[in-house]
Parts: sequence; C-alpha cells; structure tokens
Amino acid sequence: MAQGTNSISSPVRIGICAPSTPFTRDAADRVIALAAETHPQAELIFDEQCFFEEGHFAGSDKQRTDSFVALANDPSIDAIWFARGGYGAARMAEAAIEQLDGIAKGKTYLGYSDAGNLLGALYRAGIGEVTHGPMPSDIGRPGGEHAVRRALDWIMNRQKNVLEPGLTNGKKYSAFNLMTLAMMTGTKLMPDLRDHILIVEEISEYLYAFDRAMFHLCSNLAAQGLSGIKLGNVGDVPENDRPFGETPEAITKRWSEINGIAYLGRAEIGHDVENRIVPFGLLKL
Amino acid sequence: MAQGTNSISSPVRIGICAPSTPFTRDAADRVIALAAETHPQAELIFDEQCFFEEGHFAGSDKQRTDSFVALANDPSIDAIWFARGGYGAARMAEAAIEQLDGIAKGKTYLGYSDAGNLLGALYRAGIGEVTHGPMPSDIGRPGGEHAVRRALDWIMNRQKNVLEPGLTNGKKYSAFNLMTLAMMTGTKLMPDLRDHILIVEEISEYLYAFDRAMFHLCSNLAAQGLSGIKLGNVGDVPENDRPFGETPEAITKRWSEINGIAYLGRAEIGHDVENRIVPFGLLKL
Repeated sequence: MAQGTNSISSPVRIGICAPSTPFTRDAADRVIALAAETHPQAELIFDEQCFFEEGHFAGSDKQRTDSFVALANDPSIDAIWFARGGYGAARMAEAAIEQLDGIAKGKTYLGYSDAGNLLGALYRAGIGEVTHGPMPSDIGRPGGEHAVRRALDWIMNRQKNVLEPGLTNGKKYSAFNLMTLAMMTGTKLMPDLRDHILIVEEISEYLYAFDRAMFHLCSNLAAQGLSGIKLGNVGDVPENDRPFGETPEAITKRWSEINGIAYLGRAEIGHDVENRIVPFGLLKL
Repeated sequence: MAQGTNSISSPVRIGICAPSTPFTRDAADRVIALAAETHPQAELIFDEQCFFEEGHFAGSDKQRTDSFVALANDPSIDAIWFARGGYGAARMAEAAIEQLDGIAKGKTYLGYSDAGNLLGALYRAGIGEVTHGPMPSDIGRPGGEHAVRRALDWIMNRQKNVLEPGLTNGKKYSAFNLMTLAMMTGTKLMPDLRDHILIVEEISEYLYAFDRAMFHLCSNLAAQGLSGIKLGNVGDVPENDRPFGETPEAITKRWSEINGIAYLGRAEIGHDVENRIVPFGLLKL
C-alpha cells in the first residue's frame, strides 16, 4: 500500500473543537469509547477548548477561533468535527476563515446546527469537503450512538448508505438549520447557493418564527438561482397560545412559491438521530 | 377658521386595523372609552377585521390586506393606527403597499413591534408620516393608558413632549423591533436607512438570539451609511441555562464597532408603557 494512504495500519486523526457552546468530558469519553468499538482506526482528538466555559460560550471568541484554526492548519489532522451547536460560531467564523492555509483545504469538515456558520463560510471560501451531519453532542440523544456512528461511517469510509436518501448524483447540495442560515444572509459567511438544492431543518421554534424565518430566507434567495428547496425535520415546535393554522411544509411551499423557488419535498436531516449526511456541492459518487 | 382644518368642531377619524394578530372587543372598548375622556375630538374606528381570527392571525392574509388598504385609501380617514403586533404583517405588507393610492400618502401611520413591517414598507415607498409608537394593545399593560394617551397626543396634537427625548431637530430617524427589522433585511419591505439614526428595541428573546440578530442586522447595515444606532429597552429576557456573559448594550456596541456603525447610546422605546414616539425621517419641529 502506498505511503500516505489511509490503510488498516494508519489511523485517521479527527480533530474536534467547539466553535459555539461547551462540551462535557463525560460525553467526550462516551464518543471516544463508541468510536473505539465501531471505528478503531479513528483517533478522536478532543481539543481542550471543547471544555472551556466563558458565559454562553466554549471559551472566548479568540479561544474558539484559535482552536479551530490550529486543528484545521495542522497537517497531522485529517478531518475536523464540530463538537456541538448552540450559538457562537457566527462570532468567530469570519476571523477563523481568514487564518486558514493550504493544509486546511484538504480536510473534511462535519457538523450542523450553529456550526452551519462555519460550514457556510468554509464553502464560500472553497475550503475542504464541507459536510452537514451528526456531531459528538448527538451521543446525548436516546439512540444517539447511531447518529455518531453515521458521522464516523462518512468521515472514515465515505459509506453511501449514510447519505440523505434523496441525494442524486450530479446535483449540487447544501444543508442548514433554517434560523442559522436566515441570520447568515447578507453577511460575509453566506455562500453562493446558485444551482444548489438547499435543504433546511428547524428545531424548537414557534411556527410563527418558522414562518418569519422562511419569509426572510426565501425573499433573500429569490434572485439567487437556487435549484430548489427541500424541508428536513421540524422538531420540538413549542405550543403557542393558539394553533398557527399551517404546517411547516405548507409554510415552506407558500414562501417558495411566492419567491419563485421550486419546492422539492422532504429530506432526512434534523436535530435528531435520523440526521443523515449531506456533502456540500456537486455530488459525485 | 379655514375649512378643512381640524378644529374643535371637526373630529379626527382614526382608522384601526390589525395586520398581525387579533384584537379583542373588550380592549377596543377600553381604548374608545379612554379616548372619549382624554381626546374627545378623536373618532376611533376599529375595523371589524381587528376581531377576525384565522389560526395565528386576525383573519386571512387577504382580509388583513384589504382592511388596511380600505382604511388607508379612504378619504374620510385621517390616520391609521395598528391595533397590535404579534406576527403577520410581513405576509401582507408588500401586497398592501402596491394597492395604496394618493389618498394614503397624506396620513399618519402609527405602530411598533410586528407592525414595523408596514412602517418599513410605507417608509420605503415614501407614503405618509410613518411613526413608531404605542398601539391600542398597550391598554392591556399596567399603566397602559399612559402609552395609549401618548399615541393620541401625537396623532391629534403633535405634542412634542411625547417624542423620544433624545431626538434632535434636523436629524433623520427610524425605529424598529430588532428581530422584526433583522428579518426585513434584503426583502422588499426594507427601507433605505442611509443617514438615519436607527433605534432598535427587543422583547422576550434570549440574549444569544439577541446577539445573533444583532450580528445579522449590523452585518447587513454595515455598507449602508447609517448615521448610527441607538438601543431602546430590551425587556423580558428569558433565563437561559447559564448566563450569557454580556449585556444587551455591550452586544450592541460590539457588533456596531465590528461593522463600522456608530453606537450612540440608549433611547426610550420598547415593549412597555414608556415607549415614546419616533417619527421616521427628518425631524423638523
């Protein structure tokens, strides 16, 4: 076997940082134990920064930036895995991207939710294989080991059976949390989504807030030449004082139609253990 | 006294519609009773649409559009007062503005919160005297009669003592709820705020969501030549599982500075009875 190829004898080193909120050592230990069983060739490197705490965040904006940049620019690290979401990546993504070098371009970057700020900014900059999928934090969900294992199946083996089942070879994709992407429009983190199928999911938002974010997102994307929009899971919708009167899918269809965007149906991504893998850009398998 | 001037014998007819969520007859009766005492020349006309209910909204998108357009284009109505916020004006504002005629241009439009979608769209279109201030719904707050009275003092008499106390003659202003304006950026409702001092307020948002909305708003306004930003009240902030670590003012200062926007201090607007009047555009008193 050629040198430099990942073989049975060369581990894949996965660097893990927390661009948003703090992770716990206990959860990290559980992810490491699971990976040792299911993917013994994976070497999980949880940066100490994952466990920092400063107010809402996993350390200061600078600490979260530095941790990500150090891992991304480290030639001994093969892939970057974002530990969890919450909120915070929007505060460090622009500065972080500016500090990445050539080494960072050869890596896979995996995460979702608030980490979408980094996925978007990396994709905008043309850096790495940007991928929407489960994070170490999913270990905390009932059945979460399936989600974590799916992420490792992709990072380690590019297993096709972990991909979002509606993905089609030869088409371009991106995937985001709706609110995260809505707040990225017009900022320096927003990638060009022309000719892409955009998949969005949402969690823990009132339906009126979902409608408002969809108004904002579809209005902003109307002139951008999207190939279409698909809707992932919309989970844990809080009860309002009265029913909203429309489903998330009806809301998505309405705002898509008003803005001349094709609505292409449902997709299997979301804040849950069924969250499947969506690699950004042209799908070539 | 010249004909056509509002005098002791000519009432001012104020048309009230609900572009967002339903009002109640009981609250309408209380506002009418209060006005009869304090502003006997004001004739309050609550359109029946205020009491419609369809899911989350005060009637369908079309009913809310039609009610507003009919009042705005009615030559016998002198001013338009939005009954309450909630969510919904973003779904009808664009269609409504397209249907306004010359009659609509001569009126005052008053409201805040979700009604900001209409304030913004009217101001963008150069229609009427667009004004941020209390609504009939404020009657439901303890001491709310002071807020309602302030709105009538402005509509009826242009009383200077009800203006936001930091306003300066010769400067341009606009005022919005932060989340409402954040979701208007890049849409057909967003007015040009060049050379304006923008005042924003917020209610019932976690500080991480406030930070995210401020990231979005300031990033989008960075290149637009604002004269500066002022922060109104930030009320009813929900408790998160841990302290955010920054005050709303520190958050506003930070995102303003990053985006080259002057931070100009605090202002007296908000979802409370102290909510003062901010006429949009050049202040000439």
